[in-house]
Amino acid sequence: MNSVVILGSGNVANHLAQAFIDAQEIELIQIYCRDKEKLNHWSKKIDIIDDLTQLKTADVYIISISDDAIKGFSKTLKIKDSLVVHTSGSVSINGLKGDYEKGVFYPLQTFTKSKKVNFKDIPICIETISKNQLIKLEKIASAISNNVFIIDTEQRKKLHLSAVFANNFVNYLYSISNEICDKNNIPFEILHPLILETASKIKSSNPTEIQTGPAKRNDKKTIQKQLKQLNGNQKEIYKLLTKSIIKKYN
Amino acid sequence: MNSVVILGSGNVANHLAQAFIDAQEIELIQIYCRDKEKLNHWSKKIDIIDDLTQLKTADVYIISISDDAIKGFSKTLKIKDSLVVHTSGSVSINGLKGDYEKGVFYPLQTFTKSKKVNFKDIPICIETISKNQLIKLEKIASAISNNVFIIDTEQRKKLHLSAVFANNFVNYLYSISNEICDKNNIPFEILHPLILETASKIKSSNPTEIQTGPAKRNDKKTIQKQLKQLNGNQKEIYKLLTKSIIKKYN
Repeated sequence: MNSVVILGSGNVANHLAQAFIDAQEIELIQIYCRDKEKLNHWSKKIDIIDDLTQLKTADVYIISISDDAIKGFSKTLKIKDSLVVHTSGSVSINGLKGDYEKGVFYPLQTFTKSKKVNFKDIPICIETISKNQLIKLEKIASAISNNVFIIDTEQRKKLHLSAVFANNFVNYLYSISNEICDKNNIPFEILHPLILETASKIKSSNPTEIQTGPAKRNDKKTIQKQLKQLNGNQKEIYKLLTKSIIKKYN
Repeated sequence: MNSVVILGSGNVANHLAQAFIDAQEIELIQIYCRDKEKLNHWSKKIDIIDDLTQLKTADVYIISISDDAIKGFSKTLKIKDSLVVHTSGSVSINGLKGDYEKGVFYPLQTFTKSKKVNFKDIPICIETISKNQLIKLEKIASAISNNVFIIDTEQRKKLHLSAVFANNFVNYLYSISNEICDKNNIPFEILHPLILETASKIKSSNPTEIQTGPAKRNDKKTIQKQLKQLNGNQKEIYKLLTKSIIKKYN
């Protein structure tokens, strides 16, 4: 049975810990965190340490900390032979600095602290330098997810960029939509089914082929009317996205 | 039992027809369309006409045609006393021109021809000039949906604008995300769970409060790296949305 140690205490680290505890084929033997108290909720189930000299021997060490800290932290690990991976979408595999085998274990999902996720549905993008390590990492990833993809550092950068559009920017558009509703005493709930259906359509359709709306139709009258109702950043965003959609489809 | 006639043959007209057929409390007595062949699939169940002089007497007439055509078409209806409504998000209640009672019956959802929808979940925004007609229209809307909202023309304009952000523009961001994946041989399916979860979060959280990403963190290093990977419209959109998010949160 493969043994795993997690290093970190954030959302991803916590959700991964739960997924490994639930998985029969993997043994989560330790979690490291500078501030042990942050992991008190695990202390009855797993060995929690705040001192790297107490690190147990494991097959895979998963570093799940902020992107900027990965390089510096990875240098301090006195690990040989074993595989060390990070969970970042934007850090290169060579962002890991040490004498160990290197890899990436990137779960592509947005995690909320309080909300339990079904890891089986979450895509995990894996990468290693050696082929043997890839087989090991694939096994570990498959123990918690049904969607494991081999994605190299260059592809991962692009994937992370795609996710900024599909997640961060999309959520920002939701917040603009919400603001317009609030300002006009309209319950934002009216838009929930539309938002969910729009997202759900990607499962069966290419978004480029199902674009709708005033910009797609180049409906200048509606566009002008809507622009008049906006100002500031919202107006700029409406203008640019509309221009871009018109250019694409007309 | 209230009787309804639908005028139109588009997606909304077809989905409404199905919903009224399924509803026990409403009698759909006729559908009008200039080109009867478009409604052949209904001809065994409902009286289909292409000649307005054959219009039966009904409690409510629902005009479900393109926004630009509503005004002209509504003038040609020789209806008195009954209620005539349109289904548009962006046309004023006074866009209806005739001697009848006027109203709006706006189902806020994105409809796909081939995909059956559960109308019960779809919000219907209603408006009338007279209060008596509002009670009648509320009854009819409630027969097919559990989400009926009274929304006046001004609010409806804003709602439609919100929907452009939350549906049209969001779908356009999906298409950019998809394009980046295609260009780099990354299966877009990897992003599906993220997209669905991002949408699903609006049910429990205010999008403004759960914004994440490089722009939210004002993570200049990542932003610069990502900008270098983009060009053209995609770069402009990344820049503007990032600037706008940084301004809002920092």
